[in-house]
Amino acid sequence: MEQIITFGEVLMRISPRGNKKFMQSNIAEFYFGGTELNVGISIANFGGKVKHISVVSNDFIGETALAYIRKFGVSTSSIEFSSRPLGVYFLEVGAVMRPSKISYNRSHSSFSDVEPSMVDWDKALRKGSWFHWTGITPALTQGAFDTLKEGLVLAKEKGITVSADPTYRSGLWKYGKDPKEALKELLQYSNIFIGGINEINEVLGTDYSYSNDDFLKASQQLMETFPSIEKVFDKIRTSLNSSWHKIRARMWNGVEFRESEDLDITHVVDRIGTGDAFAAGLIHGLQKYDDFKAMQFASAACALKHTYEGDVNYANAEEVISIIEGNVSGRFVR
Amino acid sequence: MEQIITFGEVLMRISPRGNKKFMQSNIAEFYFGGTELNVGISIANFGGKVKHISVVSNDFIGETALAYIRKFGVSTSSIEFSSRPLGVYFLEVGAVMRPSKISYNRSHSSFSDVEPSMVDWDKALRKGSWFHWTGITPALTQGAFDTLKEGLVLAKEKGITVSADPTYRSGLWKYGKDPKEALKELLQYSNIFIGGINEINEVLGTDYSYSNDDFLKASQQLMETFPSIEKVFDKIRTSLNSSWHKIRARMWNGVEFRESEDLDITHVVDRIGTGDAFAAGLIHGLQKYDDFKAMQFASAACALKHTYEGDVNYANAEEVISIIEGNVSGRFVR
Amino acid sequence: MEQIITFGEVLMRISPRGNKKFMQSNIAEFYFGGTELNVGISIANFGGKVKHISVVSNDFIGETALAYIRKFGVSTSSIEFSSRPLGVYFLEVGAVMRPSKISYNRSHSSFSDVEPSMVDWDKALRKGSWFHWTGITPALTQGAFDTLKEGLVLAKEKGITVSADPTYRSGLWKYGKDPKEALKELLQYSNIFIGGINEINEVLGTDYSYSNDDFLKASQQLMETFPSIEKVFDKIRTSLNSSWHKIRARMWNGVEFRESEDLDITHVVDRIGTGDAFAAGLIHGLQKYDDFKAMQFASAACALKHTYEGDVNYANAEEVISIIEGNVSGRFVR
Amino acid sequence: MEQIITFGEVLMRISPRGNKKFMQSNIAEFYFGGTELNVGISIANFGGKVKHISVVSNDFIGETALAYIRKFGVSTSSIEFSSRPLGVYFLEVGAVMRPSKISYNRSHSSFSDVEPSMVDWDKALRKGSWFHWTGITPALTQGAFDTLKEGLVLAKEKGITVSADPTYRSGLWKYGKDPKEALKELLQYSNIFIGGINEINEVLGTDYSYSNDDFLKASQQLMETFPSIEKVFDKIRTSLNSSWHKIRARMWNGVEFRESEDLDITHVVDRIGTGDAFAAGLIHGLQKYDDFKAMQFASAACALKHTYEGDVNYANAEEVISIIEGNVSGRFVR
Amino acid sequence: MEQIITFGEVLMRISPRGNKKFMQSNIAEFYFGGTELNVGISIANFGGKVKHISVVSNDFIGETALAYIRKFGVSTSSIEFSSRPLGVYFLEVGAVMRPSKISYNRSHSSFSDVEPSMVDWDKALRKGSWFHWTGITPALTQGAFDTLKEGLVLAKEKGITVSADPTYRSGLWKYGKDPKEALKELLQYSNIFIGGINEINEVLGTDYSYSNDDFLKASQQLMETFPSIEKVFDKIRTSLNSSWHKIRARMWNGVEFRESEDLDITHVVDRIGTGDAFAAGLIHGLQKYDDFKAMQFASAACALKHTYEGDVNYANAEEVISIIEGNVSGRFVR
Amino acid sequence: MEQIITFGEVLMRISPRGNKKFMQSNIAEFYFGGTELNVGISIANFGGKVKHISVVSNDFIGETALAYIRKFGVSTSSIEFSSRPLGVYFLEVGAVMRPSKISYNRSHSSFSDVEPSMVDWDKALRKGSWFHWTGITPALTQGAFDTLKEGLVLAKEKGITVSADPTYRSGLWKYGKDPKEALKELLQYSNIFIGGINEINEVLGTDYSYSNDDFLKASQQLMETFPSIEKVFDKIRTSLNSSWHKIRARMWNGVEFRESEDLDITHVVDRIGTGDAFAAGLIHGLQKYDDFKAMQFASAACALKHTYEGDVNYANAEEVISIIEGNVSGRFVR
Repeated sequence: MEQIITFGEVLMRISPRGNKKFMQSNIAEFYFGGTELNVGISIANFGGKVKHISVVSNDFIGETALAYIRKFGVSTSSIEFSSRPLGVYFLEVGAVMRPSKISYNRSHSSFSDVEPSMVDWDKALRKGSWFHWTGITPALTQGAFDTLKEGLVLAKEKGITVSADPTYRSGLWKYGKDPKEALKELLQYSNIFIGGINEINEVLGTDYSYSNDDFLKASQQLMETFPSIEKVFDKIRTSLNSSWHKIRARMWNGVEFRESEDLDITHVVDRIGTGDAFAAGLIHGLQKYDDFKAMQFASAACALKHTYEGDVNYANAEEVISIIEGNVSGRFVR
Repeated sequence: MEQIITFGEVLMRISPRGNKKFMQSNIAEFYFGGTELNVGISIANFGGKVKHISVVSNDFIGETALAYIRKFGVSTSSIEFSSRPLGVYFLEVGAVMRPSKISYNRSHSSFSDVEPSMVDWDKALRKGSWFHWTGITPALTQGAFDTLKEGLVLAKEKGITVSADPTYRSGLWKYGKDPKEALKELLQYSNIFIGGINEINEVLGTDYSYSNDDFLKASQQLMETFPSIEKVFDKIRTSLNSSWHKIRARMWNGVEFRESEDLDITHVVDRIGTGDAFAAGLIHGLQKYDDFKAMQFASAACALKHTYEGDVNYANAEEVISIIEGNVSGRFVR
Repeated sequence: MEQIITFGEVLMRISPRGNKKFMQSNIAEFYFGGTELNVGISIANFGGKVKHISVVSNDFIGETALAYIRKFGVSTSSIEFSSRPLGVYFLEVGAVMRPSKISYNRSHSSFSDVEPSMVDWDKALRKGSWFHWTGITPALTQGAFDTLKEGLVLAKEKGITVSADPTYRSGLWKYGKDPKEALKELLQYSNIFIGGINEINEVLGTDYSYSNDDFLKASQQLMETFPSIEKVFDKIRTSLNSSWHKIRARMWNGVEFRESEDLDITHVVDRIGTGDAFAAGLIHGLQKYDDFKAMQFASAACALKHTYEGDVNYANAEEVISIIEGNVSGRFVR
Repeated sequence: MEQIITFGEVLMRISPRGNKKFMQSNIAEFYFGGTELNVGISIANFGGKVKHISVVSNDFIGETALAYIRKFGVSTSSIEFSSRPLGVYFLEVGAVMRPSKISYNRSHSSFSDVEPSMVDWDKALRKGSWFHWTGITPALTQGAFDTLKEGLVLAKEKGITVSADPTYRSGLWKYGKDPKEALKELLQYSNIFIGGINEINEVLGTDYSYSNDDFLKASQQLMETFPSIEKVFDKIRTSLNSSWHKIRARMWNGVEFRESEDLDITHVVDRIGTGDAFAAGLIHGLQKYDDFKAMQFASAACALKHTYEGDVNYANAEEVISIIEGNVSGRFVR
Repeated sequence: MEQIITFGEVLMRISPRGNKKFMQSNIAEFYFGGTELNVGISIANFGGKVKHISVVSNDFIGETALAYIRKFGVSTSSIEFSSRPLGVYFLEVGAVMRPSKISYNRSHSSFSDVEPSMVDWDKALRKGSWFHWTGITPALTQGAFDTLKEGLVLAKEKGITVSADPTYRSGLWKYGKDPKEALKELLQYSNIFIGGINEINEVLGTDYSYSNDDFLKASQQLMETFPSIEKVFDKIRTSLNSSWHKIRARMWNGVEFRESEDLDITHVVDRIGTGDAFAAGLIHGLQKYDDFKAMQFASAACALKHTYEGDVNYANAEEVISIIEGNVSGRFVR
Repeated sequence: MEQIITFGEVLMRISPRGNKKFMQSNIAEFYFGGTELNVGISIANFGGKVKHISVVSNDFIGETALAYIRKFGVSTSSIEFSSRPLGVYFLEVGAVMRPSKISYNRSHSSFSDVEPSMVDWDKALRKGSWFHWTGITPALTQGAFDTLKEGLVLAKEKGITVSADPTYRSGLWKYGKDPKEALKELLQYSNIFIGGINEINEVLGTDYSYSNDDFLKASQQLMETFPSIEKVFDKIRTSLNSSWHKIRARMWNGVEFRESEDLDITHVVDRIGTGDAFAAGLIHGLQKYDDFKAMQFASAACALKHTYEGDVNYANAEEVISIIEGNVSGRFVR
């Protein structure tokens, strides 16, 4: 089986239990995550063979992170070590109208040390058939941008399929690079675009609306600008409040526009990493199904992720398929 | 006061906290349960005098199970010991569209040792006025079937009222007995049938639909086939998803068809044992009220059970009555 | 900055986790609270300078209570000690149609020791610009009533604004004083009335309905009876069940009747202290905004409180304002 | 089998985990206990038939206490209810040179309500063969003293063996009765004296030293003063610090002075209730063995109790016997 | 690097926290273990490349076990699945003179399904350079014995070094095979004997004492009887009580008798798996050091294991070496 | 009352429960600490008025740190905010021969932002009578060194007593400054030296041994070199292993050499911050007692700290005095 390659920062997530604030307790739970790792682990849970590339701390926290990744069967053989500490984020989980809050401690993390010389891309991509990147990595440091770009160039050379989730997060991008230019540079090497109007407008400098019509036009303009891009998938979230969301998706693959039905998530357990679950579902789905079913798989995976604590999606492929088949009434599985 | 007798396996339930999977934690909570025990404990919480008959392990887990049962004032004086381990089930609690999952470790449990010779039915039923059985017990082993049947024969002789909840679970019934024949054999000794279209179709080999009309016809055919059966009570669950259910009930007592209003359970805490809470509510209700109010009591008990963790219903009779009287807005009780 | 003064019992709240009953666990979480302290802490969280006046136990529990209060920056310099134990309340948190239950252990608590001689009101009010009292304190003991009254008399002399939340709780008032007369005596010194039809009817002996028309008439009659009262604010709760509430408010300030929109609290985390959060929001709001915005601030504060565990509202002013501005979709704050 | 009767307050014990102070956590664990109940439960764990007599609160805390007692098979049929709250004690567990600290909330507890009219001693003692009391009960209230005395008078009439553990705790005895006179009044009805030099000096007004010689003389003088007393048992604790104790015992039964070997408790888990475990061991032992072996059983039971969290001794008779037989190396039991 | 192969049952260990009994809590912690797996994981933690061979359940518990094993980098590629449940053991951890108690639920576990046909030994041993077995596996079922034997025969053929820890546990061996004969049959294929006087006496039918002289003679007789055995290593535990042990070791390698110094374990954290840590230390040590240093490494590894919760030893090789070098004062590592 | 001023980094400490490694759990407990803050809080617990000066993060973690500090009544009015994250340290607690391990994440923390311009020393020291510094602060950054030095210069001008705990930690000091020179520069402003042979040798470039004779000579040379230094106090720790320590102290005050008795800490609960507890005890003691009693107070405070979890000493002055008076047997305080 061929490998899916993900590349990005591994973060330790620390949060008090339930809806508590840090002020209310002296106990916290921790998980590991990071947007690209979340995608990788989720694909491994669907049965894919995955390798994650990163730089972690050379201490017992870094060891714990590696153990966490190995647990899911994701290969850690291309993960390097740094004497800087692992990146951390603190999370206070909101409810109803109270938003969740995140505070990052990542600007001098072990991953911020990454430089092209630290990753042996040739070895890392040797068995790769798919490479996934997101807009978080190039937003961190020049070294991260360069390292990612080097990987993408090689992936293109090797004919590896590249998916891009160019999420634009304005709180990052502090090292001087212009986000728009950076993302454009990287999108040239990408085949699958996972993102919506916001990301397209950011990259193209346009101001399309959220309507389906505009989505179609925006996607077409995107595909004209970046000829390597073959398909655009957009996840649409409707939030009643922190505890109640709906998820649907739409797509343009150059031929066909499709939209999926809303999945109603009446009692959100954990919202983190749900976009990553969508991306993972899509990557898995596109390897096994037609585009529309892949998008359904992605939507169902995304919806299911809202029911698991932590950053990663624990659902296996069979469980996702069951949602697509309409088994959403939560009947016991014995 | 006269005793309600229940007979069946005691299981240890082990599950991670909240909606976690076993993979996500190294901490679990445990309770004890088992469908017939759940009924017994629930009736004891309503104020009934209850004796549970079973076989538990001869170790500190068996002792813990006995302590758990005694806590509710249920008599353990007819519980026997086996050198086999207590049955266990592992539970991962779902949410929204994610179903809960159960994995059993019961096929060579202490209760699987049960044989007619281990239960002194004469002593066990001495003070009994009501005997409750379910379709789980005869599905486990020939010994369990035989022991139950011996108890039912004696109960009938003594004029003890017998209620049957012949839940058919296809994952059991592995010892060779035909489920349909077995249940028919046991239903001859029963007076109250707690079950719906699925169970009636299973026993009669019919294919009635879920409509009220068909329920009526099915119940009548059932009562013709088993003349001892005087009343049929059916609980109807509507599941939006794992976290949001509605419960109502309907009945045919040979004279009158009645249906209760839906009770809306917008935030399910724990779904396990809610059917047992219905049965317990019915048994308690039929001893104190008319058939319709008994059914209302059963429905309200069932709905309330969804708000308690664990297998058993902690509500007392006053709390159930309060629901029937319309106090569902959750106003503080100080 | 000038001080807001609150006076009342500090209670230790003890409850099992989640929706468990005490019977289901041997672990409990504890917080401290008390209706007036909740108001004080909440105002401190909005940025106000607050002093709480009380009597706590002279042991490690009393020390823990003081540490808890100090954590929020509320001054404890006027809190006295008693050799009696701190008041405690035990809480079992309900869900859906199951009501929460509270059992108090406060009748011989350290606060029940309070006598006018124990509080140096002159010192306590020195920097005060606002004094808040509720109907709980005068309901406890003659000493509590007398002490409160002495404080109110002095507050009036000093021109300090007085807000009253004359909640009437029938389970209290055991020391012989007539509640109606007691509350009337104290309302003479008050400027802001935080309460609704029930409280007005109790105090005036009237039987107004819950309609807006009646609210208007009742408020006017109240203000005629107690000329010091300038404004009346009423919080209206609509409970679908224990887990799903809606909150709105209405006001009469002698000039203008206004009503706010319902805020939909689809997943209640903790309902305790939500009325106190409303009062705190109002006191804060009236010092910074016009009456209507103050009422909106109070409603939003009240709604937000339902998302925090414990008795007190952890929201800061900016977070409350964000709700008023319509940010209720729970988008992450990074 | 005949019943052992214990009479005394049931207390809820609340303490943070491990060695934490209440200031350091918002989580506590709770157990139930009370010196006489501890004795009763411990005897039940040795296989005895026990009834505990008390007054508990008429709320969910009282119900939880009853459930706790029933768990051990101790009869609660003579426990009455009061509208006052159950007594509570808060515990901070020390270590090494840090002493454990206890704060009581019991002076207006449900048990403080007890009056002779509340206990039907005739019914309570009907099956009794042994009655155990301690110096805590008569120290609480006049009603507790009177109720206990009435029970002792009837016990003597019925020829029931009475054991007394007249622990003198100076922090109690606040209701006016002179401790010395009260204890003397009650010792007249007692057969077994469980206590040492401190208790004898307190009761006789003597000043014997801790030497074995003095113990012998003191015991003889005690038995002369109270002719009903047949045997005196004294537990001797040597504390290196909070975490390391040694236990031995000595006795005088009118004929023979014996002393047991020190049992070395190198890692104390929980020191509460270890004296009660000694008393329970003695009561059990005296019914089955000679006086010396009974004392050994008591010492071993006491030592074992230091290894269980909570107030009660979970060891069964077989486990205690194993210690007497020298199995103290902690070899696994599989 | 070449692989160390371990073969044996994977058990889920479930125990309450600290020194609690199951009766005292409804919370448990769980780990996975099993004597051979413990050895394998421990060697992986020393840096070895390890593959574990077993049969686990085909459910979420089996998946969790696999994730646990993968966490340590141990290969699970030769682990098979069974529809039977994973074996479980329940543990109550003792203290001081209270022994720990274990109750097993393994007699019909997934591993009890194992048959030679389920293990592809040729594939499993392909990269193997060392094979470790214990006396637990052949004691379980005929299938386990046969499968193990088949593996040993092949290992011998391939010139793989075989270590044997023929622990004799009398509570097992229920399937009819004579333990002595079985162990003899298997020892023929073994090169390193990890065990002491008890095991040698069991196998040879001798009655050597624990003296060093007898150890020497016993080892020599063992090596005469089983010519493949080249070295005998014996771990000696001195238990003051459950909480305080000392560990030393001795060896005979045909040339030299050596004994190591006692390591004083004054505060035992977890005693389970300490023998496995010794075996793992030895296997690792014999590959890197001379026999005496290997034995020192094994003793230090064993001692360190007493400081980790769970079945497995988390120490890495550097940490073990540090103990051998005398760093036992517990100075911080920053 | 006059203020004690402390200045230094506030760190969040995160560690798994008990002796677990991060790999073994997904739950951690957190406290706040930092060597100078620990001293400040400990003095506040002795009844002193304390102000801590620092820079914390401008997020919910910084807020939580402030709340933590306020809890103890320590003034936070001179604490500033930075947009960098709060420093964190991860801790794995060892046992017996296993050392505890610490991993820091502090090199780009909010405190690393500190510059002289951020601290208004004039305001900060206004009410100060004592200033305490340690060798950690100047080891962090040039800004921290400069800020500290500015404070010391002003303290000297104002005649404030300065105590120095010039702990030398070689893992720090990465910004270029020579540790020896830096410490010398700062010691000029100091009156009380808290440290031993290691620190003196480091500062003077000498190689005194640990003998009392050498301690005397070293102290004298130190006092000659730094004429402002009046007294030298040295804490001596003897570690059997991670779980068992002994503490004593010695002093030279220019007139008198004294040494205290060993305090035996047989069961260490938490070793972190014990040196800080010594310093705090000394500062408190020197303000109330003669030098020898101050040293005894410091030793007892240090010993007691080993019994509290977390970084700070919770003991009050009365509890420390009780240890000096010989009450080390851990008798209950009720």
